[in-house]
Amino acid sequence: LNLVVLPGDGIGPEVTKAAEDVLSAVCKGAGLELKMSHHLIGGIAIDETGNPLPEETLAACADAQGVLLGAVGGPKWDGGSVRPEQGLLRIREALGLFTNIRPVRVFEGLEHLSPIKNAAGLDIVIVRELTGGIYFGERQEGDEVASDLCTYSAEEVRRVVAPAFEIAKARNGKLTSVDKANVLASSRLWRRTAEAVAKDYPEVTLSHALVDAMAMHLVTHPNDFDVLVTENMFGDILSDEAAAVSGSIGLAASASLGAPGTPGLYEPIHGSAPDIAGQGVANPSGAILSAAMFLRFGAAREDLASQIEAAVESALKAGVLTRDLGGDANTEEITSAILERL
Amino acid sequence: LNLVVLPGDGIGPEVTKAAEDVLSAVCKGAGLELKMSHHLIGGIAIDETGNPLPEETLAACADAQGVLLGAVGGPKWDGGSVRPEQGLLRIREALGLFTNIRPVRVFEGLEHLSPIKNAAGLDIVIVRELTGGIYFGERQEGDEVASDLCTYSAEEVRRVVAPAFEIAKARNGKLTSVDKANVLASSRLWRRTAEAVAKDYPEVTLSHALVDAMAMHLVTHPNDFDVLVTENMFGDILSDEAAAVSGSIGLAASASLGAPGTPGLYEPIHGSAPDIAGQGVANPSGAILSAAMFLRFGAAREDLASQIEAAVESALKAGVLTRDLGGDANTEEITSAILERL
Ligand SMILES: CC(C)[C@H](C(=O)O)[C@@H](O)C(=O)O
Ligand SMILES: CC(C)[C@H](C(=O)O)[C@@H](O)C(=O)O
Repeated sequence: LNLVVLPGDGIGPEVTKAAEDVLSAVCKGAGLELKMSHHLIGGIAIDETGNPLPEETLAACADAQGVLLGAVGGPKWDGGSVRPEQGLLRIREALGLFTNIRPVRVFEGLEHLSPIKNAAGLDIVIVRELTGGIYFGERQEGDEVASDLCTYSAEEVRRVVAPAFEIAKARNGKLTSVDKANVLASSRLWRRTAEAVAKDYPEVTLSHALVDAMAMHLVTHPNDFDVLVTENMFGDILSDEAAAVSGSIGLAASASLGAPGTPGLYEPIHGSAPDIAGQGVANPSGAILSAAMFLRFGAAREDLASQIEAAVESALKAGVLTRDLGGDANTEEITSAILERL
Repeated sequence: LNLVVLPGDGIGPEVTKAAEDVLSAVCKGAGLELKMSHHLIGGIAIDETGNPLPEETLAACADAQGVLLGAVGGPKWDGGSVRPEQGLLRIREALGLFTNIRPVRVFEGLEHLSPIKNAAGLDIVIVRELTGGIYFGERQEGDEVASDLCTYSAEEVRRVVAPAFEIAKARNGKLTSVDKANVLASSRLWRRTAEAVAKDYPEVTLSHALVDAMAMHLVTHPNDFDVLVTENMFGDILSDEAAAVSGSIGLAASASLGAPGTPGLYEPIHGSAPDIAGQGVANPSGAILSAAMFLRFGAAREDLASQIEAAVESALKAGVLTRDLGGDANTEEITSAILERL
């Protein structure tokens, strides 16, 4: 196995280090050879090369089975003409990572951390289109008029809706496609295409929701949903809303996948948290659970992925909690607790 | 005063009837002449004229000081080629209603209805741009490719950000502008223009938030905000999310305003609720509070607006609650309770 690690900015290096330790331990236990190499992205890449995604990094990623990313950005680079986030947008585009998978869960015993009253047992997956729509459409910058174009082709919709159906099929057979079909042409194409793909998945029940209604449902009764699939901009908003609803952003992982056989990008949802960077108190669980997603999707080792996930859950249940979860464990302590439980 | 009433579909006629009764009582008490006339919009307008916004309706609106709308839409018209919501989008465009104002409050004693734990005292105002952006940009419909253009001019931004500053100035002097400036050109124009308008309001502190972060904040700490201003699509999503957070959508009112001196549109947030239509159990408070906003913005009678709002609050505090708020009062009972308290 060949994994590229992009520690990035802020707490990025601390959490990817912990995830590397866990990955190494699991792979060693399974007799799986794992090669890891570090490369630059984000603010630190701007500082060292002037480019938030150096060619060298991209070349390394293209050769790997997966990419583990820490976090990018920070106040240091705010307002600069080159921004750390551009590295993130470019790597998504360059690696063709059109499917973003974000599980949102409330772990047993952590219900009290959720801002909502009915969070117990929350377990949904949001699938977000990641390389199309208004994020990558033609732009017109300007002081008097500015515009952004949201375009989708049927093929772009199909290739992200299909994996969402696969995920729904492997879970409870329930998929909700989110759009704004009462206003947007691209949403009407989205909805028609989702209906067409549904014919290949008779065991999955497809329903549709408008994005404004879904923004409500995620607050009032998120437990009624299982797998959501939506376009890039709506997915950005709804997946962050859902993560906030869970109350434990520090535990949230993600996988961004492209065509089969190409390397995916695995990253925690939390940002670079510059306020606590370097203190050794960051929660590495989001990065560790992202590493588990790498084993699942990038190495087809569901067994090893589950092993990591079970160890994280067990450590949480034992009350080994970092600050963000109301505890006082530091990064090393929670990492050790997870390693012990593998 | 000349008010056009558009009862619309579902519970629309029931709630506008209650609001008319309250308006009549208040205006009579103040010696203010109030003329009201009824016209068609939405599904019922499609049924009777084939057009969700008949010319006749539009002509009546143009001559009035304000328009009170009930609700539009329902399963009966789903999937038809002409849809009730088109009436809503067209009236916004035709009357030039570029500023949508949505107060979101948690009333004393109703905290338990909110899905979030920290809802007590929530009191924010969301100002949404309503006639621009991706809602009204060029569209390309298609089976293989479809697109929607999001365009803003500096003037379109200025004319909605300015009233938001006015509202912030009259409240706590805190305004948060929401955009996606790290990705969208239109958001960068939005942010620059907001900064420019800020120069005219030294007493207001302007801050910026990204839409994905704001979707989180509204769930985790909505009380930290006071007035939000944002573009059309983000406003659609965030204002519904905020309404859900309040836990009492039945109480939520809105005003959609255009240029000074032109008629505004006042409507409750709740939909047509076809499941309870005709039963006399709908909560008319959203419509009644919308009527209060008409007196405030359409008739410059802050005194009468406050009178209605105080009466509604008092009735709620006395426990006269409709089903949606956990009580068993019907539409007539809560309306009488409000009338008694004027
Ligand atoms: C940093 C930003 C460009 C990015 C996005 O909007 O996609 C982030 O919010 C995310 O969700 O990964
Ligand atoms: C019905 C629909 C077109 C409308 C919108 O999206 O603006 C509604 O959701 C609203 O917020 O008033």
